[in-house]
Amino acid sequence: MTDFARTKAQFDLPDGMIYLDGNSLGPLPTAAKARVAQTVAGEWGQMLITGWNKAGWMAQPTALGDRIGRLIGAAPGHVVLGDTLSVKVYQALAAAVDLVPNRKVILTDNGNFPSDIYMAEGLIKSLDRGHELRVIAPEDIADAITPEVAVVMLTQVDYRTGRMHNMKALTAKAHSVGAGTVWDLAHSAGALPVDVAGCKADFAVGCTYKYLNGGPGAPAFIYVAPHHIGTCQPALSGWLGHEAPFAFDLDYRPGTGIERMRVGTPPVLQMAALEAALDIWDKVDMHALRAASVALSEQFITGIEAVCPMLALASPRDPAQRGSQVSFRFDQGYAAMQACIARGLIGDFRAPDIMRFGFTPLFIDAGDVDRAISIVADVMQNRLWDDPIYQTRAAVT
Amino acid sequence: MTDFARTKAQFDLPDGMIYLDGNSLGPLPTAAKARVAQTVAGEWGQMLITGWNKAGWMAQPTALGDRIGRLIGAAPGHVVLGDTLSVKVYQALAAAVDLVPNRKVILTDNGNFPSDIYMAEGLIKSLDRGHELRVIAPEDIADAITPEVAVVMLTQVDYRTGRMHNMKALTAKAHSVGAGTVWDLAHSAGALPVDVAGCKADFAVGCTYKYLNGGPGAPAFIYVAPHHIGTCQPALSGWLGHEAPFAFDLDYRPGTGIERMRVGTPPVLQMAALEAALDIWDKVDMHALRAASVALSEQFITGIEAVCPMLALASPRDPAQRGSQVSFRFDQGYAAMQACIARGLIGDFRAPDIMRFGFTPLFIDAGDVDRAISIVADVMQNRLWDDPIYQTRAAVT
Repeated sequence: MTDFARTKAQFDLPDGMIYLDGNSLGPLPTAAKARVAQTVAGEWGQMLITGWNKAGWMAQPTALGDRIGRLIGAAPGHVVLGDTLSVKVYQALAAAVDLVPNRKVILTDNGNFPSDIYMAEGLIKSLDRGHELRVIAPEDIADAITPEVAVVMLTQVDYRTGRMHNMKALTAKAHSVGAGTVWDLAHSAGALPVDVAGCKADFAVGCTYKYLNGGPGAPAFIYVAPHHIGTCQPALSGWLGHEAPFAFDLDYRPGTGIERMRVGTPPVLQMAALEAALDIWDKVDMHALRAASVALSEQFITGIEAVCPMLALASPRDPAQRGSQVSFRFDQGYAAMQACIARGLIGDFRAPDIMRFGFTPLFIDAGDVDRAISIVADVMQNRLWDDPIYQTRAAVT
Repeated sequence: MTDFARTKAQFDLPDGMIYLDGNSLGPLPTAAKARVAQTVAGEWGQMLITGWNKAGWMAQPTALGDRIGRLIGAAPGHVVLGDTLSVKVYQALAAAVDLVPNRKVILTDNGNFPSDIYMAEGLIKSLDRGHELRVIAPEDIADAITPEVAVVMLTQVDYRTGRMHNMKALTAKAHSVGAGTVWDLAHSAGALPVDVAGCKADFAVGCTYKYLNGGPGAPAFIYVAPHHIGTCQPALSGWLGHEAPFAFDLDYRPGTGIERMRVGTPPVLQMAALEAALDIWDKVDMHALRAASVALSEQFITGIEAVCPMLALASPRDPAQRGSQVSFRFDQGYAAMQACIARGLIGDFRAPDIMRFGFTPLFIDAGDVDRAISIVADVMQNRLWDDPIYQTRAAVT
């Protein structure tokens, strides 16, 4: 059983802050300070170029990938880290489309994160072979998986509402008509148990700076199913995905395993921070995490609905249909969230009217949720959003 | 005038080590330790999600890009940081090819860094429109720039020998036949004065972990000429290259300026280290740097040739044809370099027989070069490479 009081003690959290935004950027694992400092001063500073071998920098993308693999149901050797999530979406989608050359429809939903859609648009433009990006409502996806679909590309958990797709059922549906799947786990990895192998997902990608607490700008990850790994073709064929990067051959030959999805030099300092975060994750049971996440989310919904009738639940009421966040609609949501933030409750806002709260049992407990409910109640009952200081929007929200 | 004794004092260099490998991975600027620690503990730890605005994380890719711009002759607003160099090569080449839709030849040389060639192969495969990657000898490039060429894609300074292309002349030749140019400045930026605007280069890319001392895995940069910036189409159309990333629109619209070459979330911890490195670079005169680099390189060549007749100069003898490194050929080069490294002289080896030494006036002085010559002389005159302990190759060299 995971001891969440113990995991909470392993994070640096500002005094008096209730941080319900671990779904945007996870907090600092205390050990990351020393780990990054050691990488900077002891590895970079003292080992210099030899750090690639001596400090294991070159192997980190697969070594840490294996540790993330456990959290998403992937066997060792099927996950690698690197680049940003958008780049990993591009790689996964390009490879998935390439496996079904005679089909032209890429199916996604309008709850997908916009960058995934943008990257698909860019890929389709480059390919220039008549592909269509079909963007429909999330609830219509299952019925729209028809034999003309090449790839179903979805984010499992909606970034605004927390609405969750049934990954196993939709993947099975896709396979039943001969389509492939690309799953974006940005709001799933570290949020709930994921079983990419059990679901038979073809490709999956995700980021490590949200629930996984890898730090701002931490690298993304990509998973490739065992039966594709030897055949899928990397569109971004960089030297570190080459079978023999240091042979400096003039022709590209993809690496034999998941390494073929590597592109360029890994971000060593970011990897060090992520490693400290994974030291905490290594001891977490994902089913215990899910149970705690559901309990916190239910406590929050019940508490808010009892005292804030102006807030309309935007997330699915059934916890089985929801990721690890709870969102409410409110037309003055931006200002109301600013008022919460000013009182030490950090959530975030997504246009046009979503107030979003993430529940992360590694560092949030029932007492935090009680305090969060009190702050939201104060903001709502006293119409604190009316104060003009909360109305001005920052560039990044 | 740049005071190189003062810049040298701003780096952490291991005691007794002569580091002639700043062309692979620059050393640690002392200030980077506190700068990164502050970003980890003070920014990530205390500001959490608000760091994107409060700590300026979101603006770093263009703010630091402008500071790199000065070093390569770009006006503010034309350089942005992010991703790895291979990804930036892909973006630049895709945009350059797209500007000349009726031509199919991408011209490069066999001295280009292999990853650039691999990325071009991958792009050509995705485009599937009959493009040809023409890989020829560096000395034949000028004559091969014919009206069928769409893009000339070159690394200015050869990573093995330091041989330098004439960027201005080749760009002019390319333009005279209606071709575009993509210049890889991996071994130029921070090595010598570069004038991308004066040369009228169309696109340029480079990395920041070599001469620029940004640390292992520091982000790459891309430059787009003013006359292309409003028209070139990003192939990797990620959300941070969108005109309004936080509007979360479902359709991609490229940003108005160099921002369109951004893709995903910037690597904040890496940026912090790079910022500390640029604090040193901001005060460096690039012409003074070049004069010092040539003086050190000439001192090394003269010294080595006087005492090591077995070593054959692989770099151009004329400093005007050379970047900031000096290479020698020796058939036991790998073992000889290992013997040098064991004695505190760090250079590197590139197959099949290149011993490579980088000259970086920011932290290498004439006394270091004298000591380096003595170590090489000891290794060569006493045949130290014969020792079997130097013969075993590491995975990363």
